[in-house]
Amino acid sequence: MFVQILDFIGTFAFAISGIRLASAKRFDWFGAYVVGFVTAIGGGTIRDILFGITPAWMLNPIYVICTALALLWVILFGKSLIRLNNTFFIFDAIGLSLFTVVGVGKSLSLGYPFWVAIIMGSITGAAGGVIRDVLINEIPLIFRKEIYAMACVAGGVMYWLCAIVGVQPYVCQLLGGTAVFMTRILAVRFHICLPTLKNDDR
Amino acid sequence: MFVQILDFIGTFAFAISGIRLASAKRFDWFGAYVVGFVTAIGGGTIRDILFGITPAWMLNPIYVICTALALLWVILFGKSLIRLNNTFFIFDAIGLSLFTVVGVGKSLSLGYPFWVAIIMGSITGAAGGVIRDVLINEIPLIFRKEIYAMACVAGGVMYWLCAIVGVQPYVCQLLGGTAVFMTRILAVRFHICLPTLKNDDR
Amino acid sequence: MFVQILDFIGTFAFAISGIRLASAKRFDWFGAYVVGFVTAIGGGTIRDILFGITPAWMLNPIYVICTALALLWVILFGKSLIRLNNTFFIFDAIGLSLFTVVGVGKSLSLGYPFWVAIIMGSITGAAGGVIRDVLINEIPLIFRKEIYAMACVAGGVMYWLCAIVGVQPYVCQLLGGTAVFMTRILAVRFHICLPTLKNDDR
Repeated sequence: MFVQILDFIGTFAFAISGIRLASAKRFDWFGAYVVGFVTAIGGGTIRDILFGITPAWMLNPIYVICTALALLWVILFGKSLIRLNNTFFIFDAIGLSLFTVVGVGKSLSLGYPFWVAIIMGSITGAAGGVIRDVLINEIPLIFRKEIYAMACVAGGVMYWLCAIVGVQPYVCQLLGGTAVFMTRILAVRFHICLPTLKNDDR
Repeated sequence: MFVQILDFIGTFAFAISGIRLASAKRFDWFGAYVVGFVTAIGGGTIRDILFGITPAWMLNPIYVICTALALLWVILFGKSLIRLNNTFFIFDAIGLSLFTVVGVGKSLSLGYPFWVAIIMGSITGAAGGVIRDVLINEIPLIFRKEIYAMACVAGGVMYWLCAIVGVQPYVCQLLGGTAVFMTRILAVRFHICLPTLKNDDR
Repeated sequence: MFVQILDFIGTFAFAISGIRLASAKRFDWFGAYVVGFVTAIGGGTIRDILFGITPAWMLNPIYVICTALALLWVILFGKSLIRLNNTFFIFDAIGLSLFTVVGVGKSLSLGYPFWVAIIMGSITGAAGGVIRDVLINEIPLIFRKEIYAMACVAGGVMYWLCAIVGVQPYVCQLLGGTAVFMTRILAVRFHICLPTLKNDDR
C-alpha cells in the first residue's frame, strides 16, 4: 500500500516532467499526454519487454489515469508550476528511487544475477526520460546534466552490497532507494557532474 | 479477402508517406525503403511486441513486397505524386482506420479489456508515423498537427460503445473504422486541432 | 572460440564508434558508455525481442565488460584514435560481417525462412548504429552514406545462394560474412553510394 502510493507519486512526477517538456515544444493536449505517459511507463516497459513479460501498465489502468490527472493538473495550474519546481524535483527523485528499486527487485525475483538487475533498475528509472527526449527531438538530458542515471547505478550497487552482507530484502530495498535519492539530491545541490570525454579526435 | 485488400492499400499508403519524407531528407533508396517499411509495420510491431507475439510482417512477406512496390512507385512516378496528394490522403485515412480496427480486434481476441484495446488500436494506427519522424529527426507530426491519433481513440471508443450495446463484432469493426475515417477527414477539412498547453512555465 | 574473439572485436569496434560520436556531442562518461553499449548490442537486442527470446547480453556479462574496456580505451588513448581510424574501420567491417552472419544463422535455426533471416541479419548488423544516431539526435548515417546496411543484405543473399547450392552451413557463413566485408570495403574505397530519390515532390 505504501509502495503503491510512492508508485503513484513517481508516475505523477514523471508524467508531469514529460507533459511540461512537450508543452514547451507546443505539442497539443494529446501529444503532451502521450509524452507524459511514455515518460512515466517507458522505463518499466522496456524492462518488461526485455524480460519477455507483459508490461505492468497493460494490467492496471492506474498509470493511464495517473497521467490523465497529471495532464489535468498542468492544464489547470500550469502557471503555478514554477513555484513548485522544488517540490517536483523531490517527487521526481522519489520516483527515480522507487522505480529503480522496483526494477532491481523484479530482476532478482526472475532469477537474474545482480549485474543484470542493476542495469534493469537503471533502465526502469531512467529510460523513460530518454524516450521523452527522443520524442521531443532533444539530446537526452540524462547523458549530459548532473548525475541522474548514475544515481540508479549507485542505488543498485547499494542493494547488492546489502544483499551480500545478508540483510533482509526489504532493508536492501530501503537502503538502495535511499542511495538513489541521496545521490540525486546531493548531485543537484552541489552540481556534481561526471567528466566528459575530451573531444580530441575531431 | 476484402480486409486483405484494405490492409494492402493501408500498408502501401503508409510506406509511400515514409518514403516521401525520407527522400525529402535526401536518404538513399535503401534508407527510404527502411523508413517506408518501418512507417507501415512499426505500429503493429510495437503492439505485437507488447503482447509478446510474433509480429505479423515476419510471418508473411506481403509487407516487404508492398513496401518495395511503394518504393518503385515513388522512383518511377515521383513527379506525379503531387497531383495525387488527395488520393494518398484518402488512402492514408483508410490505412489508419483499418490498422486501428485490426489493433482493437486483436487486443480483444487476446482477452484484454477495452481500455487496453483502444490504446493498442491507436498504437497500431499511429506509432509507425512516430517512428518515421524519429528516424528522419523531426518532432513527431501527429503530436502537433490536425487530429490524427485522436481519430484512432475516437474509433476505439465507438467500437467499445457498439460492443456495449451488443451489436455483432463485424458491425463494431465497421462503425469503429468509419469513426476513425470520418474524424480524420473532418479534422483535416475543417482544420480542427486539439488545444496546445499554454507554455507559461518557461 | 574463434567466433567469440571476432564477436569481442566487433562489439569493441561498435562500442568505440558509439563512444566517439557521443563524446563529440559532449556526453559525460556515463552517457558515452550507454551510447557505446547500445550501439554494440542494439541490433541483436531488437532481433531477439522480435523473436521473443532473451537478448544475448542479459545472459553473458562480456558485452558490458567489453564496452567498459572500450570506454577506458577512449579515455586513455582518445588522442591517438585519429591515427587508428583505418584500423577501426576494418574492425567495424569485421563486426558488421560477423553480426550479420550471426543474425542470419540464428533466424534459420529458429525455423524462419530466408527472407526473414536476411532482414534479421541486417538488423543485427546495422540497427545498433541507427539507435546510436537517434540518441545523439542525428539523422541515421547509414541511410545516407556509402553502402552500409546494403552490405548486410548482400551478405544475407550470398548466404542464401550458398544454402540453395547446398554447401555446408559453416561455408555459407564464411562466404556470407566475406560478402558483407568485401561489399563494405569496396563501397568505401570507391565511394559507392546508392542513388537518392529525386526530391521532385517538394
